[in-house]
This record gives sequence, structure tokens and C-alpha cells, in this order.
Amino acid sequence: MNKLNEIIKKIDEIDFSKENKIQKRLDNLTKPQGSLGGLEDLAKQIVLITNKDNPSLDNKVIFTLAGDHGIADEGVSAFPKEVTAQMVYNFIKGGAGINVLARHIGARVIVVDMGIASDLEFDDGVVIKKINYGTKNMIKGPAMTRDEAVRAIENGIVVFEDEFLNGVDIVGTGDMGIGNTTASSAIASVITGKPVEDMTGRGTGIDSKSLSMKIELIKKAIDVNKPNSEDAIDVLSKVGGFEIGGLAGVMLAAAARKVPIVIDGFISAAASLIAFKLEPKVKDYMISAHCSVEKGHKTVLDYLGLSPLLDFNLRLGEGSGAALAITIAEASVKILTQMATFKDAEVSEKLDT
Amino acid sequence: MNKLNEIIKKIDEIDFSKENKIQKRLDNLTKPQGSLGGLEDLAKQIVLITNKDNPSLDNKVIFTLAGDHGIADEGVSAFPKEVTAQMVYNFIKGGAGINVLARHIGARVIVVDMGIASDLEFDDGVVIKKINYGTKNMIKGPAMTRDEAVRAIENGIVVFEDEFLNGVDIVGTGDMGIGNTTASSAIASVITGKPVEDMTGRGTGIDSKSLSMKIELIKKAIDVNKPNSEDAIDVLSKVGGFEIGGLAGVMLAAAARKVPIVIDGFISAAASLIAFKLEPKVKDYMISAHCSVEKGHKTVLDYLGLSPLLDFNLRLGEGSGAALAITIAEASVKILTQMATFKDAEVSEKLDT
Repeated sequence: MNKLNEIIKKIDEIDFSKENKIQKRLDNLTKPQGSLGGLEDLAKQIVLITNKDNPSLDNKVIFTLAGDHGIADEGVSAFPKEVTAQMVYNFIKGGAGINVLARHIGARVIVVDMGIASDLEFDDGVVIKKINYGTKNMIKGPAMTRDEAVRAIENGIVVFEDEFLNGVDIVGTGDMGIGNTTASSAIASVITGKPVEDMTGRGTGIDSKSLSMKIELIKKAIDVNKPNSEDAIDVLSKVGGFEIGGLAGVMLAAAARKVPIVIDGFISAAASLIAFKLEPKVKDYMISAHCSVEKGHKTVLDYLGLSPLLDFNLRLGEGSGAALAITIAEASVKILTQMATFKDAEVSEKLDT
Repeated sequence: MNKLNEIIKKIDEIDFSKENKIQKRLDNLTKPQGSLGGLEDLAKQIVLITNKDNPSLDNKVIFTLAGDHGIADEGVSAFPKEVTAQMVYNFIKGGAGINVLARHIGARVIVVDMGIASDLEFDDGVVIKKINYGTKNMIKGPAMTRDEAVRAIENGIVVFEDEFLNGVDIVGTGDMGIGNTTASSAIASVITGKPVEDMTGRGTGIDSKSLSMKIELIKKAIDVNKPNSEDAIDVLSKVGGFEIGGLAGVMLAAAARKVPIVIDGFISAAASLIAFKLEPKVKDYMISAHCSVEKGHKTVLDYLGLSPLLDFNLRLGEGSGAALAITIAEASVKILTQMATFKDAEVSEKLDT
């Protein structure tokens, strides 16, 4: 718990009083004032987060954390459990969606075993931070112990801190774990207080019958475990997942280092709820990449006060939406740092009207 | 008119019967079926447009066409007329928004003088296709002659064809011209049949009084010239602009070469209306980059049946929104061509449910 408490203490409140000054700088660039809309807002947010006048986002890193879920044994996913490990092999061989998108935007992908149900047969290129061999089935009791929940978050912190030594200017969060929309829906329902039905979607693509069963299982898990919505560690331990805890740790550690955090889809959003409950200040370091089709995602973003950048009906996870949003974020910063001013370019300014 | 008619004849109808086959290919990649949503749709559209199984979008080109507008003398813009030429200098020096964004995505910017009101003092890096020294003031008569309108479109065709020799895999459309939202609103109102009030926005940022005047001027221009909404050349000549005609030409030429066209903002949308009225088949080659804040843009996109990719409250023009959309389009194609299949990656497929 020491590592977690220490990192939380290091998260500074963002000084929004500087916002007008950055907008003035944007207004001096050769374009009608405000004409780059959302890009200008992003650039401002990144200057505020980094506390650098001219941030560069050369070092783009996507953390894709993997873990298994005991609840998968109940058939909540359209895919078998072994897919978690199989996809990790795919990540390290570079054939998954996140690999393609990360290469496209020039980002590194850090793949982490937070709690895959098996030992990996080969793990070159995987950071091993395994807490346990998958969570326990949460309809029968807590998904993990309280100690495991803390260690999951702290392992996420360590993963970020270790990578930070190689340079990290912006972070994308990603996940892999068969069954993890189920855990995420449970977390989202408990923390936002919204009904399970409103927070539960089809994940990898289950049919309506399986969706009804998934909802009933989540209700049962909440009923059996009675997580305390005001205690994020309690929620994570009772209905969460190792990769979700790890992502919350990555987020807290990134905020402590003033690194912008690009939140991917629904699982990352659930992790951001855990991080937010541990330290609300972390929210201002977050950029929502996109609104996925997973039911409940929009509600979680509203709860956090985040506006999604993209709306492409994505539901892959892995950090795929974050990758696309990161390249937009980088573009926004380049607008601020590379565009000519009216004065430099000798362009006439707006007429007085 | 020969060049225009010839290019129109070369535009093939897209064979949508291949769509299912491409979706099946996407469904074999290591991700839940359909989980990359809009990216999958984009990839399919680009395969259909290019008629290539494995298109590559290495050669990304943004055509930023500039022209002046006689109507600017009435004070419809927040900026003085000389800004058109000044911004062209800014483009060739690399300091404008479009330069920054094009560099970010690895695109070339082709800057064209379609009809700036003055001769450029230096024009290294500008393609000179000047039709005239700005259009005439359209409240007093046609903005240009019918012959000039045809030549504007044909010059756009030549600009594309010349650049095609250097390799063009995807096109972004961009514009620069003080007063050109006024011409675009007039075109949009005439072709869609919607009231001028619904198609007229604040452009570079005029106040409400100037906006009312702008609306009245557009109404007057339409009343004075009585453009025939079924005759695109008539509309372009009476209430259009040289850069708008040129962009329509670029679009038609790109479609004839099976090159995807990424439509930027409101001015590009007006040009796409002209191109569409000349040859409706061109529409299927178009990708709408974004929905700008300029009033009427959404209506034009609906008229064309296009769904915007991004929604960032942009209103800069130049091709800025197109640049961002092009890198998303490139990502979508890489998903199709670079991701591993379930078989190759030895990942278990969806369970039978």
C-alpha cells in the first residue's frame, strides 16, 4: 500500500489558470480564432497536464495489460478463456489490431501479464507482473483478495515507472482478458450507482440469451460480495480484474509524472473509475479516446466528466481506440508548437468589426 | 468541355457486390467480428474504390486550392481579401495549419492558385492555374462566365492528373479564399433547395450583424443570377468560386483514377455538390472527413448521403480535417492488410452459441 499512497501523493492539481494564456498563444497562430476547435482544446489540456510550454509527444506508449477472469467459466464471453494467452502471443508477434495501429502512429506497445490463467509458453517481450492465475469466479466470492487488488494496482505503477525510464510522453491504456467486460460492468454499476442492465453490453459479441445471463451473473456477484462503492480497493477486489487494477495503477503513475493518459474503451473506463475513486485529481490527466458501442461506456464517461474524442463504434479494446486518439493528440500539440504566427507569416489579422 | 466530359466518362460504378467478401476477410482477423466498427467500414470502402485487394495509401496528397471572391468587397468575411495571397505564402513556407497536419500524417500539400486577386510576388511551390483575378461580385451578376466555370473544373482535373504521375493513393481536398463560405452557402442552398438561412454560418468568425448581411447578400446573389439547380456549371458560374470549381475537378479526376477522396469542410462539401451534380457516381468515391461547425455542412453531407468521420468543431478549411481523416483511413487499410488471421496466429475462434 506504500507505493500506492506515495504515488497518489505525487499527483498535483492542474493549474487551470494558465488556460487563457495558452488560448492567446493559439489565437496568434495563422488561423481564425478557435477554428481548430477540439484540436485547440486538446493542445491546451496537454500543455496544462505536462506543465510544458512546448510539449513533444515523441514517446508514445500503449500499455496493454492482460488478465484472466474466473467468471469466464460461466460462459459470459463469445470466446474461450485460452484466447487471453493466445492473443498475448499475437501481441508479441505483432499481428494484433493494437500492433498495427501502434506501428501506424509510431507508438511502443508494452504487453503485461497481470494474471493470465496459465504460464506463458514463451514470454519474450511480455512484462510478467502476474498476481495470480486468473481471478476467482466472483459469483462465489471475491474475485481476488484485498492484498491482491493493491498489488495489481502497484504492479501497474511499477510497469509505468520502469517504462518511464525509456521516455514516455503520452500513455494509451489497453486491455486483454476474456470475461473482462463482465468485471468492468460490475465495477461501473457499483461505482456509478446505475442499474446493471444499463451498464452491461455484448462484449465480444454474445447473443441476447447470453446477455441476460451475463446481467444476472453480475447482479449475483454484486449481491454475494456487497462491494463498498466508496472503497475502490474493495470494489476492485470483489468484482474486478488484475489487468483492470494494473491499468488503474498505470493511470495514477502517469498522472504523478504529468503524462497525459488516453483512456481506450469500456475496460479502461472501468479502470479509470478505480483510479478516480482513489484520487479524483487523476481525472484531469485523462483524455477519452472514443465512445465504444459497449453499453454503459457513455455513462461512465459522463460520470467522470470526459468527452470522447472519436466515435467509430469500436469494441476491440487492446488500446486500439487510444492509438488513434494519440495521433490526434500529437497533431494538436504540433499545431501549437509548429504553426506560424500572424506576425511571423506577415498575414493580416481579423478586421475590427 | 472535352476534358470534363472525358473524365466523367472514365468514372466507373463501384461494384458493391464485393463487400461481403471483404467483410469475410476482416472477420478472419484476430478480433471479434465487427469490433473495429467504423475502421472496418472505411477499409471496405477503400478496397471497393481502389479495386485493389491490398491497397496501400503511402502517397497521401492534399490539394489546397486558393481563389478570391468579388463578394468579399461587401464585407462578408472577418478577414481582409489580401489574406488569401498571404496564406498562400504561408502554405509554401510551411507555417499554416495544413502544413503542420500534412507533415504529421506524411502527406504532400499541393497549393494551387486558381484565381487569387493578385499576381503572387513569389510562387515557388505554387501550381499556377489562375482563371482570373478573383471572381466578380455575384450580387451584381455572375461570379464568372460559363467558360471560366468549365475551365476552373478542367484546371482541377489537370492539377490532379499532373500530380497523379508522382503517385496519388488518397486525396484530401482543401481550400483557401476569403469570402468562400459565402459562395459555398449559395451553392449549397441552390443545389439542396434549403433556405439560405439554414446554409449560412459565421465563416472565419463574423458577428450576428454581419451574418444577417451575409444572408441577405446571398439571397440577392441568387435572386440576381437565378442559377439553375440542375445545371452544376450554371450554379458554379453564377454563385461559385474558382477554387470550388477546381476542387470539383480534382474530385472527378480522382474518381476516374479510382483514388479515394477525403472531403474536408464546408467549402469542399460545396465543391462535392458540384461534382455530384455533374456525375452522381463520384459520391461513392468520397469519404467525409468531419462535420464542421459551419452551418449547413451537415445538411450538405446528408444530401450526399455521407457520414462524417470526425466531429472536432473544426472550421479552418485548407484540408485540415481531411489530413486527420486520411491518417485514420490509412490505419483502416493497415488493419485489413497487416493483421494476423485466427489461423496464422493460432487463436481460437468464437464459440458456437
